[in-house]
Amino acid sequence: MEEIVVSAPGKIILHGEHAVVYGKIALAAALNLRSYLKIKQKNDGQVTVNLPNIGINKTWKLSDLQQKISLPLCDPLKPFTVTDDQLSQLKQLGGINPDSNSTTDLAVIAFLYLYMCITACEGELCSVEVTVSSNLPVSAGLGSSAGYSVCLAASLLQIGGLIPPSNSLGKWSEQHLKLINDWAFQGEKIIHGNPSGIDNSISTYGGAIKFQGGKITPVEKMPKLRILLVNTKVPRSTKILVAGVRDKYNKYREVMEPILNSTECITVQCESVLSDIANNPTPESYNTLQDLIDINQHLLQAMGVSHPALEKIIRLTSQYNLHSKLTGAGGGGCSFTLIPPGTAEETIVAIKIELEKLGYDCWETSVGATGVCNEKRDAQLPTYLS
Amino acid sequence: MEEIVVSAPGKIILHGEHAVVYGKIALAAALNLRSYLKIKQKNDGQVTVNLPNIGINKTWKLSDLQQKISLPLCDPLKPFTVTDDQLSQLKQLGGINPDSNSTTDLAVIAFLYLYMCITACEGELCSVEVTVSSNLPVSAGLGSSAGYSVCLAASLLQIGGLIPPSNSLGKWSEQHLKLINDWAFQGEKIIHGNPSGIDNSISTYGGAIKFQGGKITPVEKMPKLRILLVNTKVPRSTKILVAGVRDKYNKYREVMEPILNSTECITVQCESVLSDIANNPTPESYNTLQDLIDINQHLLQAMGVSHPALEKIIRLTSQYNLHSKLTGAGGGGCSFTLIPPGTAEETIVAIKIELEKLGYDCWETSVGATGVCNEKRDAQLPTYLS
Repeated sequence: MEEIVVSAPGKIILHGEHAVVYGKIALAAALNLRSYLKIKQKNDGQVTVNLPNIGINKTWKLSDLQQKISLPLCDPLKPFTVTDDQLSQLKQLGGINPDSNSTTDLAVIAFLYLYMCITACEGELCSVEVTVSSNLPVSAGLGSSAGYSVCLAASLLQIGGLIPPSNSLGKWSEQHLKLINDWAFQGEKIIHGNPSGIDNSISTYGGAIKFQGGKITPVEKMPKLRILLVNTKVPRSTKILVAGVRDKYNKYREVMEPILNSTECITVQCESVLSDIANNPTPESYNTLQDLIDINQHLLQAMGVSHPALEKIIRLTSQYNLHSKLTGAGGGGCSFTLIPPGTAEETIVAIKIELEKLGYDCWETSVGATGVCNEKRDAQLPTYLS
Repeated sequence: MEEIVVSAPGKIILHGEHAVVYGKIALAAALNLRSYLKIKQKNDGQVTVNLPNIGINKTWKLSDLQQKISLPLCDPLKPFTVTDDQLSQLKQLGGINPDSNSTTDLAVIAFLYLYMCITACEGELCSVEVTVSSNLPVSAGLGSSAGYSVCLAASLLQIGGLIPPSNSLGKWSEQHLKLINDWAFQGEKIIHGNPSGIDNSISTYGGAIKFQGGKITPVEKMPKLRILLVNTKVPRSTKILVAGVRDKYNKYREVMEPILNSTECITVQCESVLSDIANNPTPESYNTLQDLIDINQHLLQAMGVSHPALEKIIRLTSQYNLHSKLTGAGGGGCSFTLIPPGTAEETIVAIKIELEKLGYDCWETSVGATGVCNEKRDAQLPTYLS
């Protein structure tokens, strides 16, 4: 029986969070903390989805599913947004409260929708067991749900015979990537309602993207950058933070508008320096990246979206001459610290020890990571998948 | 024999430090930490200057001074910049190394120049004893030398009979204030070489002024604001800080230009809110002042002119819901914290205790203070003057 393992990266915003709400460019990069999905074909007439990170393990009989819903839900080559009727039916099939908006419940619905749209061949579902787990913390603004949706799309499209396995470099053609991305976006819509499409694009294509006014453009030359990602675990509401900036903007428009303009110039300059580094990495270019990180962090503080926990990380890393900024909505959540080439390993170890003492989670990882790909059988996977 | 006591305030920059270097508006206000000068006419044929704050006590025989320099040095109604020749002669008279540029030495020269220009009547000097002391820390960017020069000008012009005593409100006419200010500027030139004229203008006129591209404009309506002034005592070089911002500006012009524009908008909005408060103080207006303080502080951090000691003060006061920013060049030096009406006295006491524990000097004072004035005989003066 066929068994496929796929993985997809998370994302961080390098620059432009909040400013993007006002039509400015934002720059996001693939984060090499990956979601992994193993799909196994079976012949027991059942379908199982197993999401150990969020405590989900559900099995349905294929006959039950086929009885209660007319298949296929749509053309698997033409990704389509779930209708309200289908959503109700899927919730019922999934044994989920019709009013539920919990991410956990919606993740199950997203699975069912993609599974039933993509793998139903002439109305016949195939028996599979899907296990997904992730190195990404959930609900931390790092795109864990997009990684999940992208892995679902890439694996189900292979099972359905709609795309081939990725090539020896782990890649697919543009056309196949687009199909993965479009289906992943449908999954994201079920989970998030009105997603920007940034997270699934980054997770599909990897590298980095620019985003402005709803338009997503890949960054041509994105080097891999080592970072220390830190999760303060301070809970925050993106909605409240965005509203807070809006209040400041409405009250102090002439003061805030240039701050947003400056933020956009930081984003633009960062993209240009990233291209320089991709061509020819120099210490000067890394210094520039660090200057831009510092300035943007202060502008985000001026917007009122920082948090004492974030500033603690920034002070701590600056004592080791490393530069950090918040990433995402702020007000808690995550920060990243650039680790330029030549940084002593002892420094990173020392910082991690201090940050963990403060109760924060740290990951030494990279941005500019590879997008969705098939993992080799002998690849090192999270233990629960092996 | 006549005895006069005059006092003059220091200054702080409310908003616009550093941005002013790029032609943006800055807003400075009179700080009610004052310099006091007592001048006593004598008949012992000597002149004495006594500056206990900086360890100066010098006495000259009038006959020695008159022998060695031709008097008057200039028309006392037409303030004139000291010539290089006069400066050399004065240094010799003052017993000061011709190459000295120490502020202490130059303060003595400024005294001699103003004294010999203003009080020499038909070549005859009058016998006086001058004592100056200040509540302001020296070399902290708070205009202590301007307070000194303004006090010298106002007292010597009275002794010379060129202006009357200040009226019952402690005021002089516009014309007399201009003469004081112009002479004080000459004193400042001797001490500082190339001063902006902000410090002596603020110290003369009190209230607040706007300053842009060399032009000084009084702020029409300036309320008195309570503040906590804190001196970190971290030594810093204004020159190096200004050069650091210039480097950033040259390297990241498109990023920095909007930051400077935003700073200017803060200054403009602050002036407008100060006028609102002068007319009708509301809690909302004080909230706005605090928002502007916060935003500007972050922009100054983005310019790279903050310091961990300053940020410590800002964090500490924010824990008590009070808002602070650096004032002046930054990189150490001073901060101010706005104390809005209704702030509990216990809060201020608690903050002062914590700040003093950190080794900082604190003064609970006000800005928007009265300019130079004659003090009444029964006014409470620093002990060394009474």
